Amino acid sequence: MNEAGGYFIDELSVGMSAEYVKTVTEADLLMFGAASGDMQPVHFNEEYAATTMFKGRIAHGMLSAGIISACAGMRLPGPGAIYVSQSLRFKAPVRIGDTVHARVTIKEVVAEKKRVSADTVCTVGGRVVVEGEAVFMVPARDA
Amino acid sequence: MNEAGGYFIDELSVGMSAEYVKTVTEADLLMFGAASGDMQPVHFNEEYAATTMFKGRIAHGMLSAGIISACAGMRLPGPGAIYVSQSLRFKAPVRIGDTVHARVTIKEVVAEKKRVSADTVCTVGGRVVVEGEAVFMVPARDA
Amino acid sequence: MNEAGGYFIDELSVGMSAEYVKTVTEADLLMFGAASGDMQPVHFNEEYAATTMFKGRIAHGMLSAGIISACAGMRLPGPGAIYVSQSLRFKAPVRIGDTVHARVTIKEVVAEKKRVSADTVCTVGGRVVVEGEAVFMVPARDA
Amino acid sequence: MNEAGGYFIDELSVGMSAEYVKTVTEADLLMFGAASGDMQPVHFNEEYAATTMFKGRIAHGMLSAGIISACAGMRLPGPGAIYVSQSLRFKAPVRIGDTVHARVTIKEVVAEKKRVSADTVCTVGGRVVVEGEAVFMVPARDA
Repeated sequence: MNEAGGYFIDELSVGMSAEYVKTVTEADLLMFGAASGDMQPVHFNEEYAATTMFKGRIAHGMLSAGIISACAGMRLPGPGAIYVSQSLRFKAPVRIGDTVHARVTIKEVVAEKKRVSADTVCTVGGRVVVEGEAVFMVPARDA
Repeated sequence: MNEAGGYFIDELSVGMSAEYVKTVTEADLLMFGAASGDMQPVHFNEEYAATTMFKGRIAHGMLSAGIISACAGMRLPGPGAIYVSQSLRFKAPVRIGDTVHARVTIKEVVAEKKRVSADTVCTVGGRVVVEGEAVFMVPARDA
Repeated sequence: MNEAGGYFIDELSVGMSAEYVKTVTEADLLMFGAASGDMQPVHFNEEYAATTMFKGRIAHGMLSAGIISACAGMRLPGPGAIYVSQSLRFKAPVRIGDTVHARVTIKEVVAEKKRVSADTVCTVGGRVVVEGEAVFMVPARDA
Repeated sequence: MNEAGGYFIDELSVGMSAEYVKTVTEADLLMFGAASGDMQPVHFNEEYAATTMFKGRIAHGMLSAGIISACAGMRLPGPGAIYVSQSLRFKAPVRIGDTVHARVTIKEVVAEKKRVSADTVCTVGGRVVVEGEAVFMVPARDA
């Protein structure tokens, strides 16, 4: 464990996996909207949202991305890791009240470059809502 | 303009560009942390953050992604568009007080599939902090 | 009344009592989590919380303590008082939507030390959820 | 590790200790005030606060208690533990910008009652700001 509480690069191996779970609330949408500035009506105008293919308000896609970030930053690789890149494919909407399971699974460790790549996926009730890949820089023990 | 206030697919052309700008505050980090669950110490513990290569607290990378989402969802393609995918490469940290300029620039329009792809970039003081590409589904006039 | 709007020590007597009442919302949990850093899953993951003895998300115990603090700081002894100590015994969970009644009742006044002690209790629907005792320093008229 | 990610009672022993650290920001005071209802002027009125013995705004004492709760609920004993009681003695003010170190140290384990008691302390720059004791119920492996 590094000084911030996360993993050292030599402690990571392919197949390691961790989950972070959060129920998405109306207040989350409000706070995410305030922090990002994203006040798109499909998130905040129930009357408009009811007329869309989603039949009601949905969460910001980037809120699910934030839950992936929570899993990566707090669990695996954990504190001390630095985000290099993230790809995101939005597969299905997340609604208020849904419980999002974000999972990070290590798929490659390049110790000499202090880099790991991982599959990242969010599911709701077992259904994929966001999927993608991430790359992190992870501290080495002598760093 | 579609009923939500965004563009129809036939109104979009390669090279169109829009910007959304937001100053990142300490309160934004709090709200983003609450909404996402990401309480990583580099965002919330100034003493620890000062010992890192960043020399102080930095914003969540996904907060910049949220500002891109704000630009896409409110400006170009605007309300009514649906996020299909987003890639993100984190190039430099964003600090409390930085003003992030998120820009979306259309680079391909596939009218028959109702899809557009775009370059997405966030800059602070002219320096790139996040860059990537996005794909959106955009409503057609007869939709 | 002191200049901050609270009581002077000579205005207080045993048996005086005041109440502060607040309905606990989902947004309160989010904000309390952000301010304190306490993102424990029983407060934010409905699926997990449903498997616990609580059968669903509950509020942070310290949020009820904060409502006691609101009663003490704004009503009795009111602004100008300084918190010396507080004991808290958590008797039952508080759920989203519960209306918490925090009550402070003076049980001892030690004028020469400018100190008062008080019973502090939170109830929901008449049932005790948190109880304890508090000690405050209260300004004297010549202070 | 129990299913929520915290300790089982048989994994705990006297002397185990964990820390959670958070820098207190102006936004924390606002969010704590909103969640609890505690809008006492010493936290929100800089002009008034400047006239007090504190010479400026201070954080709510219960915000430090919340950081203890974060340490207990997320680190030691961790998720799955239930708060039975907490005593708090407020020794010194916490100001905006202070980095609070909350530490929980196990001082008694009563396995047959599934109870642990702990010393709990918050420090800023090595100085004690809040101290007290806590009791938790911790899940047993066969629970």
